[in-house]
Amino acid sequence: MLKAVAQGSLTRDRILDAAFETLRKNGFAGTSARAIARTGGFNQALIFYHFGSVNDLLLAALDRISDQRMERYREALSPAAGPVQLARLVRQLYTEDVDCGHSTVLAELLAASSTNPALRDQMLKRMQPWLDFTESLIQRFLEATPFAALIDPRAAAGAVLAMYVGVDFLIHLDGDRSRATALFDAGDRLAATLGSVLGG
Amino acid sequence: MLKAVAQGSLTRDRILDAAFETLRKNGFAGTSARAIARTGGFNQALIFYHFGSVNDLLLAALDRISDQRMERYREALSPAAGPVQLARLVRQLYTEDVDCGHSTVLAELLAASSTNPALRDQMLKRMQPWLDFTESLIQRFLEATPFAALIDPRAAAGAVLAMYVGVDFLIHLDGDRSRATALFDAGDRLAATLGSVLGG
Repeated sequence: MLKAVAQGSLTRDRILDAAFETLRKNGFAGTSARAIARTGGFNQALIFYHFGSVNDLLLAALDRISDQRMERYREALSPAAGPVQLARLVRQLYTEDVDCGHSTVLAELLAASSTNPALRDQMLKRMQPWLDFTESLIQRFLEATPFAALIDPRAAAGAVLAMYVGVDFLIHLDGDRSRATALFDAGDRLAATLGSVLGG
Repeated sequence: MLKAVAQGSLTRDRILDAAFETLRKNGFAGTSARAIARTGGFNQALIFYHFGSVNDLLLAALDRISDQRMERYREALSPAAGPVQLARLVRQLYTEDVDCGHSTVLAELLAASSTNPALRDQMLKRMQPWLDFTESLIQRFLEATPFAALIDPRAAAGAVLAMYVGVDFLIHLDGDRSRATALFDAGDRLAATLGSVLGG
């Protein structure tokens, strides 16, 4: 019995891996059940048996990486940090997002959801935890500064998330990561000034 | 001869109108030559005669509205304005973008360009004038403030444009314009504080 569960989980993980890699390499339009099965070297019937549909499989693959990334963000950003350290950490986390394929898969599914109402609802639901996390992070950071009265953490979180989606999408279009680098460089300089003003 | 030119231009404008309306209402996936011709009440052969392809027609329709909007932005933002006035103008301009369909058509073409390399290159090229315009606006605004040394206008323009694309895309997905309203409300408060600090 235990062996059967482990076996089932192994198969699920293999299917999720294959779906993620196929979406990352081929894009949404090139990610059919057949293409995923070919990547993973298994029968495509397994996809429908375990996940019901290709879209549900792709959402499950996004959920898996998104949960991992959320845990990583929480852990990395948990110590109270000054602006300079925060800017450095956020740059590092974003670079990881790009390197591990999270950004690509997110951009592909967001673009696809533009013409797919069912996928769209699922994608919007998945932004909520990131919005909440960003809001609590901004709130925690602002508390220690004179800007607390100036900036609404919810609106700021919406702005940050919109910028993330926009940068992600534009980089996905032209492959030009320097646009993110320029933002982070500017963020570093701003953080250094804020740091010296706030004594952080 | 003059009459023939005027006639040709009339037809071109009618095709551009029909393409814009079809893209706005049906989305990219529902904007075939047939659908555009049906919207405009003309023969679909005219599309290929005047524009070569549906994609080229859609880009021409985007260019037309984009040029109009750029002129409007330039005109509205040309007087040297303090932060409060700037925040009010930008909110108004953005609302116009949404109301006239510019935002929708932009989001549709950006999403479609994710799976269409030829369209992608064309879309990226079209962001350049907006990036330049935003940069010069930020530069002009910063000059009059103590923040000039702190903020790189090019990076800030990239951030603003990414945020625009992200907000546009998210609003396009869920139809929830309140996310933009929340940003503008926060912007107003920030501008009011900056205004009193800078005496603007």
